[in-house]
Amino acid sequence: MNKADLIITGGIVATMNEKFDLLNPGAVVVKDGLIVAVDHAANIAETWQADETASYPGHAIIPGLINAHTHAPMTLVRGLADDLRLDVWLMGYMMPVEREFVRPDFCWLGTQLACAEMIRCGTTCFADMYYYEEAVADAAAQVGMRAICAQTIIRFPTPDATSYDEGLELAQDFVTRWKGHRLVIPALGPHAAYTSTPAMLQACAALALRYDVPLHIHIAETAQEVKDHRAEFGMPIVPWVKKQSIFECKVTAAHCVHLDEGELHTLFHHNVGISHNPTSNLKLSSGFAPVSRMLEMGLAVGVGTDGPASNNDLDMFEEVRLAALLAKGITQDPTTLPARQALAMATRLSARALHIDHLTGSLEVGKHADIAIVDLRTLHATPRFERDADSVYSQLVYAAKGSDVQHVLCDGRWLMRDRVLLTVDAEAMQAQAAVIAQKIDHFLITREESVLSKLLAIGGVARERTFEVQVKVLLNDSVDVIARLTEAGIPVLNPSWRRQYDCYFLFNDPDHSRIRYREDELLKKNSEIEDVDYRLTLTGPVKEREFDHSILLSRSRFDAPANRSLRFYREYFQPNEEWEIHKERRRYHVRYGGTDFAVNLDRLLNPDLPGVFLEIKSRTWSAQDAERKAELIGQLLELMGVQEQELMRREYVELAKEAARLKRV
Amino acid sequence: MNKADLIITGGIVATMNEKFDLLNPGAVVVKDGLIVAVDHAANIAETWQADETASYPGHAIIPGLINAHTHAPMTLVRGLADDLRLDVWLMGYMMPVEREFVRPDFCWLGTQLACAEMIRCGTTCFADMYYYEEAVADAAAQVGMRAICAQTIIRFPTPDATSYDEGLELAQDFVTRWKGHRLVIPALGPHAAYTSTPAMLQACAALALRYDVPLHIHIAETAQEVKDHRAEFGMPIVPWVKKQSIFECKVTAAHCVHLDEGELHTLFHHNVGISHNPTSNLKLSSGFAPVSRMLEMGLAVGVGTDGPASNNDLDMFEEVRLAALLAKGITQDPTTLPARQALAMATRLSARALHIDHLTGSLEVGKHADIAIVDLRTLHATPRFERDADSVYSQLVYAAKGSDVQHVLCDGRWLMRDRVLLTVDAEAMQAQAAVIAQKIDHFLITREESVLSKLLAIGGVARERTFEVQVKVLLNDSVDVIARLTEAGIPVLNPSWRRQYDCYFLFNDPDHSRIRYREDELLKKNSEIEDVDYRLTLTGPVKEREFDHSILLSRSRFDAPANRSLRFYREYFQPNEEWEIHKERRRYHVRYGGTDFAVNLDRLLNPDLPGVFLEIKSRTWSAQDAERKAELIGQLLELMGVQEQELMRREYVELAKEAARLKRV
Repeated sequence: MNKADLIITGGIVATMNEKFDLLNPGAVVVKDGLIVAVDHAANIAETWQADETASYPGHAIIPGLINAHTHAPMTLVRGLADDLRLDVWLMGYMMPVEREFVRPDFCWLGTQLACAEMIRCGTTCFADMYYYEEAVADAAAQVGMRAICAQTIIRFPTPDATSYDEGLELAQDFVTRWKGHRLVIPALGPHAAYTSTPAMLQACAALALRYDVPLHIHIAETAQEVKDHRAEFGMPIVPWVKKQSIFECKVTAAHCVHLDEGELHTLFHHNVGISHNPTSNLKLSSGFAPVSRMLEMGLAVGVGTDGPASNNDLDMFEEVRLAALLAKGITQDPTTLPARQALAMATRLSARALHIDHLTGSLEVGKHADIAIVDLRTLHATPRFERDADSVYSQLVYAAKGSDVQHVLCDGRWLMRDRVLLTVDAEAMQAQAAVIAQKIDHFLITREESVLSKLLAIGGVARERTFEVQVKVLLNDSVDVIARLTEAGIPVLNPSWRRQYDCYFLFNDPDHSRIRYREDELLKKNSEIEDVDYRLTLTGPVKEREFDHSILLSRSRFDAPANRSLRFYREYFQPNEEWEIHKERRRYHVRYGGTDFAVNLDRLLNPDLPGVFLEIKSRTWSAQDAERKAELIGQLLELMGVQEQELMRREYVELAKEAARLKRV
Repeated sequence: MNKADLIITGGIVATMNEKFDLLNPGAVVVKDGLIVAVDHAANIAETWQADETASYPGHAIIPGLINAHTHAPMTLVRGLADDLRLDVWLMGYMMPVEREFVRPDFCWLGTQLACAEMIRCGTTCFADMYYYEEAVADAAAQVGMRAICAQTIIRFPTPDATSYDEGLELAQDFVTRWKGHRLVIPALGPHAAYTSTPAMLQACAALALRYDVPLHIHIAETAQEVKDHRAEFGMPIVPWVKKQSIFECKVTAAHCVHLDEGELHTLFHHNVGISHNPTSNLKLSSGFAPVSRMLEMGLAVGVGTDGPASNNDLDMFEEVRLAALLAKGITQDPTTLPARQALAMATRLSARALHIDHLTGSLEVGKHADIAIVDLRTLHATPRFERDADSVYSQLVYAAKGSDVQHVLCDGRWLMRDRVLLTVDAEAMQAQAAVIAQKIDHFLITREESVLSKLLAIGGVARERTFEVQVKVLLNDSVDVIARLTEAGIPVLNPSWRRQYDCYFLFNDPDHSRIRYREDELLKKNSEIEDVDYRLTLTGPVKEREFDHSILLSRSRFDAPANRSLRFYREYFQPNEEWEIHKERRRYHVRYGGTDFAVNLDRLLNPDLPGVFLEIKSRTWSAQDAERKAELIGQLLELMGVQEQELMRREYVELAKEAARLKRV
């Protein structure tokens, strides 16, 4: 008799080897963390003895599932903000929160929680990419899970590095310290093409080659990314990444949603593994990865959950099921991606995609004992048919759930028995997570208390508080006020012609805040567009003071270049009302009484209103200065021949509202 | 203080009313099975007293989920055959098994199991459509679940009716007996347009109106169905169904995958409810229902699992999650179908779709106390953010699982507490299901032991066993054997010219069975196609006897019109090998020695072989007759001047194999 540490027997062993051997009942023999025999239960009983024999009739004994792409620490921001567009979600919520909260202890705690959740769903190995990756590695190792840990490198400042050089240094330190660990494989994680520079990618490739560690990267997740890349570099993403020598490394590419046939061939040719992340791709509307085509080509396509903030869990059973279902829907062929192949994606193919198929991914002699044991006697897996041996795959993929996993071992060590976690104190971790969640809640609640702080949170705003003295007049079309000023010998400078598309967001907050998004087209004489400026301005309708002639002293303003889309701001700020005003503006600068004034002559196109609106404005800084300027404006109005009844106090937004009301009537 | 039976308190009450009121902590008060108060926990504590007060901090208290479309008894065939095309799955497996096994006790048992599974995932109400629906109703009522039970009516014979008249009678009996039941609402279930006649649908509508019961029907599940309908009736399905007065009833239409804008408007106008079944639509590749458009129009779109044979479970948490994810993928907009709306689909909207929103679907005073209580303190729902009150929907839809449901009541009665089922003996049901599964296994294994029984199982085969005497000769192109016969004064009759596309399926079974699928084009003189015949023939290669001149006595044949596609037969029979032979055939009938012979002159196009193959054949029924005919064939060969060396024993399949082999070399 041969001696071993452990015999797991009595259930259906789905080896997930190349031949998809099924043993019913089968047995797996474990010694020193490795699988030393896999055979029919009766044969094992005759030839092997072990310190412990565990028998699981009615269960499936399968390789531990391998999550090919996640960001484990993001467990701590799961459910923080959902049903948002990628940019709003990422730049409006995730990044500000990450800037504020992501530290090594945050990453360690998030990973411990993630590991606990993954083990409870039968996952024994995951590929991670995040910041402070050493904390992730440490947390995984402590729990006893296998992990590929990729230190993120990115050309912008991150929570753990102010530049990519610093990120590379961090990565190199991490790799040298962890290389050779039994469970954790350190890796390089250049985030994506669009967040890299060629030099940065080349440096990553050199480092990965030098230390012979894997490299993890996001590729072609969204159509926009692909489009932008082509516009900027004149070639698709894959050949561009290849040009930076990345594919000389052992690469896993996450997502790969929008790739053409040629790019897929390049990936195949360079043995690049792929992580397919169907839930995330649906939830963020990234698109449908051509999975069945990839499999047909022989690409190693694994399955990943992506981060728990875009999923929102780490359940590989859900992920495999969705992968199998979605492929059928997309190809319009229900024989696509059958259950057996889907389960292979989450085991042997995930291992291949991560370049660790010599270590794990199937129950074969010589591989590490990473095993999940799944109860098939549940209500939702009843009944069990024997006619087709492969029906066990169908049970596992279409009916079984993560919660049916009863026992898990990784590297021959029990991580869970009878659904009790043995290597992580999940309750303590949950309590700590609750404390952090409260802090994040507080951070965001404070931020969102006012529109201003929400505006400040996304950055780029000049914290400039200005006051303006201004007047507005509705003139008859035929009046030429500029000619009158010139006639009066007042210098009129810098004339410009503009088309302005303004969108006002109105809020029901205590300040009655207004945000104006302005697309300001500067026109040439021939009415061609010379330049466009996008600006975001926060105002309130509160008037500080009113002078004679309806001259107003207004109001704090915060002003920033608007480098994101109107759509982004709409979804981020969620205004209570929205009004559009399009106008043609002739703008002049007038010098009068030793003071600069802006003079605007506006024709409103939307709402389409007759007449010309004259505005005279000047910035001010003190009450006295304001009074003086109000007086000067009054004089200018007289010089222009403006009648008192032509003065108007209503702003364009009010005019737009009234026009809409009249239209309805 | 007001008195009640039960107060459920302490958790977040998601009322799912029109205003989506959330109460945290909230309480629901139950009396006589009805909800008599819903309010903040503190308010309830001040004003209500009850026999029992159950407190669930950290839980969500939500309306019991409503499965808007299923076939509960099919639980007993879950996982029997997966990853197949709809027709193979339905006609090759489901229908033959249903014909053999579906009886009232089968339906009762299957429904009990289904109810047990549904309760464990928080479902308190389901809409069913199957055979022997009274058994379904009885099983649901015994378990204490709310159900709409639609007796299937179909124009073909079913397990419970030999004609639709009989089906209608059954339905009428069922409706009269169950109308007014507190939990079960009997309904009419005309299966679908393509399985109905106008008269049948009109009779169903009349019956539904007469008894004021709902009507459940499948509409536009597949593109093929829609295409076929348009080809046959010259109009889309919805207006055609409308013409049969169906929409005068309280209708729920399942699937509605392939409808145009006008049809959706018709459904809206007639208050037709819809059951969206995303898993089934993906698994069977039916397509993507335009759910977000339906919701935008104000249609009542509920969510259903469809039968557990096409899902493969009855988990509404999975279904809601998939509905929310899929809509985002399809519309390419991640703000589509947010979590809150998705949960509404499975509660209030499912109730509206089933025309029972006065009874259930939300936690509101006056509705029945159908409630699910979900633990939110799980690992996979950690952490919990408070910033946005709506984040509880996100937790429920994107992170929570059916197994997080701890307690369920329906009509004020506890069906599950602490995950223990109280009204159904699930283990006993599982044991009974195992016995039936074994019988079904046996039935299918026996059937699949021989190709013949598998052929017989799909019906339409003439069980005719014939013998043939035949000879085959390879002639030089220039030889005109027909002219020689005519010269010899032998009458040559019924000449015809054909192009035959034969596909042979070869099996490694003990009989070495062969199935030939023949597409037989009858050509006019101008080589236009006059008619096409499709035939399926089962043969074995065994020769009964060989006479002189290589004249063979062959072999049992089973012959049937092939009314399904080659693709269907390929997937259904799963042959070990497949060979194609295309030929042009000139066929004659020859009368010689008082006996009829078929004479074929074939030119092989694929494989492209030179020469003309002459076949002479005649049916026979006795050894003596066979001998006599063999002799006559010998004489005919002589008259034709055929040389011994021209005789050949190989069949076309052998020639095709050799041609392929030569091509490879």
